[in-house]
Amino acid sequence: MARDNRTAKGNFLENAWYPIAWDADLGSELLGRTIITKPIVLFRDDEGVIHALGGRCPHRFAPLARGKRVEQGIECPYHGLIFGSDGRCAVNPHDDIVPKTGVPVYPVYLRYGLIWIWTGDNDRADASLIPDFPFLEDPTFEYTCGTIYGAGHYELYSDNILDLSHAAYLHTGLNASAFLIGQRKFEQDGNRIWTRIFHPNDYASDVTSIICDVVDKKQDHWVDVRWDPPAAMTVTGLVADPGQPKDVAIQSPSLHIFTPESDEATFYFWAAAWPRRNDPVFADQVRAGFIHAFENEDKPMIKAQYELMGGDTFWDLQPVLLRGDAGGVKARRTLARLIAHEREQDNSPAS
Amino acid sequence: MARDNRTAKGNFLENAWYPIAWDADLGSELLGRTIITKPIVLFRDDEGVIHALGGRCPHRFAPLARGKRVEQGIECPYHGLIFGSDGRCAVNPHDDIVPKTGVPVYPVYLRYGLIWIWTGDNDRADASLIPDFPFLEDPTFEYTCGTIYGAGHYELYSDNILDLSHAAYLHTGLNASAFLIGQRKFEQDGNRIWTRIFHPNDYASDVTSIICDVVDKKQDHWVDVRWDPPAAMTVTGLVADPGQPKDVAIQSPSLHIFTPESDEATFYFWAAAWPRRNDPVFADQVRAGFIHAFENEDKPMIKAQYELMGGDTFWDLQPVLLRGDAGGVKARRTLARLIAHEREQDNSPAS
Amino acid sequence: MARDNRTAKGNFLENAWYPIAWDADLGSELLGRTIITKPIVLFRDDEGVIHALGGRCPHRFAPLARGKRVEQGIECPYHGLIFGSDGRCAVNPHDDIVPKTGVPVYPVYLRYGLIWIWTGDNDRADASLIPDFPFLEDPTFEYTCGTIYGAGHYELYSDNILDLSHAAYLHTGLNASAFLIGQRKFEQDGNRIWTRIFHPNDYASDVTSIICDVVDKKQDHWVDVRWDPPAAMTVTGLVADPGQPKDVAIQSPSLHIFTPESDEATFYFWAAAWPRRNDPVFADQVRAGFIHAFENEDKPMIKAQYELMGGDTFWDLQPVLLRGDAGGVKARRTLARLIAHEREQDNSPAS
Repeated sequence: MARDNRTAKGNFLENAWYPIAWDADLGSELLGRTIITKPIVLFRDDEGVIHALGGRCPHRFAPLARGKRVEQGIECPYHGLIFGSDGRCAVNPHDDIVPKTGVPVYPVYLRYGLIWIWTGDNDRADASLIPDFPFLEDPTFEYTCGTIYGAGHYELYSDNILDLSHAAYLHTGLNASAFLIGQRKFEQDGNRIWTRIFHPNDYASDVTSIICDVVDKKQDHWVDVRWDPPAAMTVTGLVADPGQPKDVAIQSPSLHIFTPESDEATFYFWAAAWPRRNDPVFADQVRAGFIHAFENEDKPMIKAQYELMGGDTFWDLQPVLLRGDAGGVKARRTLARLIAHEREQDNSPAS
Repeated sequence: MARDNRTAKGNFLENAWYPIAWDADLGSELLGRTIITKPIVLFRDDEGVIHALGGRCPHRFAPLARGKRVEQGIECPYHGLIFGSDGRCAVNPHDDIVPKTGVPVYPVYLRYGLIWIWTGDNDRADASLIPDFPFLEDPTFEYTCGTIYGAGHYELYSDNILDLSHAAYLHTGLNASAFLIGQRKFEQDGNRIWTRIFHPNDYASDVTSIICDVVDKKQDHWVDVRWDPPAAMTVTGLVADPGQPKDVAIQSPSLHIFTPESDEATFYFWAAAWPRRNDPVFADQVRAGFIHAFENEDKPMIKAQYELMGGDTFWDLQPVLLRGDAGGVKARRTLARLIAHEREQDNSPAS
Repeated sequence: MARDNRTAKGNFLENAWYPIAWDADLGSELLGRTIITKPIVLFRDDEGVIHALGGRCPHRFAPLARGKRVEQGIECPYHGLIFGSDGRCAVNPHDDIVPKTGVPVYPVYLRYGLIWIWTGDNDRADASLIPDFPFLEDPTFEYTCGTIYGAGHYELYSDNILDLSHAAYLHTGLNASAFLIGQRKFEQDGNRIWTRIFHPNDYASDVTSIICDVVDKKQDHWVDVRWDPPAAMTVTGLVADPGQPKDVAIQSPSLHIFTPESDEATFYFWAAAWPRRNDPVFADQVRAGFIHAFENEDKPMIKAQYELMGGDTFWDLQPVLLRGDAGGVKARRTLARLIAHEREQDNSPAS
C-alpha cells in the first residue's frame, strides 16, 4: 500500500487563508491549535487585536499556548522567554542578550466572525482572497455557528458537502430526498466549483422547510453548493412557491469550512443562517439539529471511511465515480493542481 | 529488528475456510468483521441463506456493515448504492447507469453452527475441506460455545492449544497436571498434526473429571489434540476406568479455531461438549469456566507474549524448543510450507 | 524529519548503573520493569538478596515477572521453566534435558535505598562507579522518596533539573526566583557537570525556606546541581545568615535520577532530604509538595515538549541556547561522547 503522500511536507496548500477559530472562542486566554501541521498560538493584545505566532518555543520546544499573556507579549510557560506580537523575543530573563531567533508571525484577518490565518508567504496574504459569506453580515439573517473536530482527511469533508445526496441515507431524519432526486448540475468558474440542485413542486427537506417556514407547503427547491480552495464552502437552500422565480426565494444559507490539523484530523467550522425571527428557542433547535447531524452522522461516517482507506490515497483506491461525484472530483483536481503549482514554484531556480 | 513479514499481503493462507461467526450470532442485522485483513459484511437473505460480501463500498469506501438489508441486497449507509448477493451493484439511486464495479462475493458454508468463509479462489472453495467436528452434530452430546477477540498473532493461539502442558501453570485452578506429566506423542498425517497425551490411573484434570462425571475416581486419561491448517483444532479428553480400552472411554471434546483479523489480532471460536445431561445449570457452569480460562488466563498471556516479541518473528527470536513444542513446530512448518506454495503459484508465469 | 537515531539499539549508555526500583518497592513478589528497552525481572532470594534476570522467557517469550518465586528461582507463568539466580534453566518440567539457553543475569547493587542495575558488560560492573548520595545515609537528615513514570526522553528530564530557572515559571507556587536571578556558574570535572547558583541576602524559595526552617529570614542562598552520566543528579539547597561561609549553611539535598524505559518514557527516581525533625506531619507535607510539582508541573511539560519535538532530535531542531542551558548542553555533549565511545569499542576489530 502506498502511504498517502499528502502526509509529507508541502502537500497542503500553503498560500491560503484557513479559519483557525471563531472570534468568540478567543477570550483573554491564549488559544493553541495546530493548522496544516504547524503549531500556532493565538492571543489578543490590549487593543483587542488578534495575533498569531508559532506555538513552539524555539528554546526548549514548550507549547507557548500554555504560557500567559503579559504586557510585552506572551510568556513561555517553561523558562519565561517573552515573545512580542512581532514574533521576536522581547524579554529573556536569563541573559543580557536577547536571542535573535523568535517565532513565526502569521497574518490573521477577522472576517465573518472567523479568525483566518495565512501560514504561507506573508507578502501574498491578501485579505481579498477570503471568499465571501455575506449572509453572516446581513441583518435580515440570524445564524448559529460552531466547531467540530474529527478524524479523517479534510477532502473527505469537502466531498461530503459537495455531494449532498448522502443526506437521503446518512441523515434520514431530515427527509432530504430532494438532494438525491433533484436535477443536479456541476459548474466550474476558475478555481470555484458549484454543485446546483433543482427540484420543483415538492416538499423540501425538513430542515429547509422549518428554517424557511414552509412546512407542509410544496415548493420549488434549489440548493447551491459552492466550493473554494482549499475547503471553504457554502450551502444555500432556496424555496419559493411553485413557478416563482429563484430571485424571490426564501434563503437558508450555511457555511462549511474544513481546516486540516494534519492529514489525519480536521477542524470543521460551520454556521447556519435563516431569515431573522429573533426567537432564541428556534435558534437553539436549529443549532441542536446541526450539531446532531455533524457529530453523530457525518463525523463517524468520515472516520470509518478514512479508516477503511487504510492509508491508501483516494485515487489509488480507484473509486467508482457516480454522477453526484462530479463536484467533488472537480474540487480534488483543482486543489491538486494548485498544490502542485505551489510546489513547482518552491522548486524553481528563481525562488 | 526485522518486522514480522507476515504482515505483508500474501502471508496468510488465502485458500482456506475460516470461521467468521457463529450462525447464532448473525441475526437479521448486518454483521461486519475483518478476516485476514479483508473487511467483510455478512447478511441473511429472505430465505435465511447467508451471504458474505466485501465490506467496503467501492464508491466512497464506507463500511457496508453499517448499512441496511433491503429487498435487493444491502444498501450502503453513505450514498445508498445497493449490492445484491451476487456482489453486483443492483441499484444506483444517482444515475441511470449502474456501475460495473461491485464488491467481492465470498463463498460461505454453514457447518457445525459456524459460518465458514473462503476468501481465496472461488473455484477452489470445496466444502469437503472443512475439518470434521462430529461431536457438534452428535445428539448424545451437548455443548456450549462462544467467540473471544484477542491481541496477538493467531499462531500463538494454535501453539497454546498444541502444548496443553501450559494448563499446569496458567490454568492453576484446573489441576491439569496430566497434560504435563502424561506421555506425549506427536504425529503428522499429511497436513494434519496430532498431539496425544496418555496418563494412566490418576485423577484427571478438574474440568475433565467434572465434565465426564468421574470426580475423585482414578482413571486412565487420554487427550488428543488435532490441528488442521490454518488453525482449526479439536481437543478431546477421554477417561476410562484403569485398564479399560480407549474406545469405551467417556469423551469431552472441544473445538478451538483461530481466525486472524490481521497479524495483530485474532478471533477465537470455541465450543466445549460433554455427554448429554440436559442440565442447564451444569451447562452454565461449564461455559463460565471456559470463558474464565480464555479471557482471564490465555488471552492476557498471549497478548503479553506478543508484545514482548516486539515485532520480531517467532523464528528470528530463536526460541528454545522443548519436547512439548513438537506439535506447534510441526504446525508452524506445515502452515509456512502451504503459504509459500500458494505464493509460488501466484507468482508462476502460468497463473 | 529525521527520526531520533537514539531509538536505535546501541544508543543508550550500556555500561552504566541505572536505578531500577527503590528497595522498599520490591517485596516478596516479583517485580518487572523495562530498562533501556530490556525487560527485567527482579526478585529476592531466601536470604533477601536481590537478583535481576532478563524478563522474557527464552522458550515462548512470556513475561517472567508474572510468574512466581519458587525454591530454585523463578518459574515462568506459561510453561513452568524455572530459572535460577544464575540465569540458567534449573528445572524443565517437560524434558529430561534442561535447555542450555537461559536468561541474562544482570548485576544489581543496593545502595542508598535504590536497586541499581548494570546491563552492560558484567566484568565492568564496578559498584564504586555509583555516584555518592551521602545525605541518604546521614542520620542527621531524614528524607522522603518516590518514583514517577512519565513520557519523554530522559535527557529532557536531566535538562529540566540542570536549569532550575524553570521553577520561576513552571512551579510558580514555590516563589523560586533565586534560581533565575542568582549568579549561575557551570563547571565540568571529568564527566561530572555542576550548575551552581548563588543569591545573597534574600528570601530563599518557599520549599528551601520551609525545609531549612528559615521562613521570612533573608539568607545567603546557594544551590548546587550535580550531574553524572547517564542521568544521576543531586540538587543541594544551602542557606546561611548573610555573610556566613557556605560550610556552616543548612542543607536541603535531593536526588533526581532518570532511568530510560525507552527513548519515549522515563522512570524518575527522587528523594528529598532535610535536617532531621522526627515530625511525620512535616515529612508528609514535603512529600506531597514534591509529588505535586513532579506529577502536575514537570511531567506534563516534558510530555508536551517531547510531543512538539515531533520525532526530531534535539540538535536537529536547532534550539536557541541561553546562559542557563550551559549545564544541560555540557551534559548532553558528555553523554553523547560516552555513547559514541562505547559504540566504537563495540565495532572495533578487537572486540
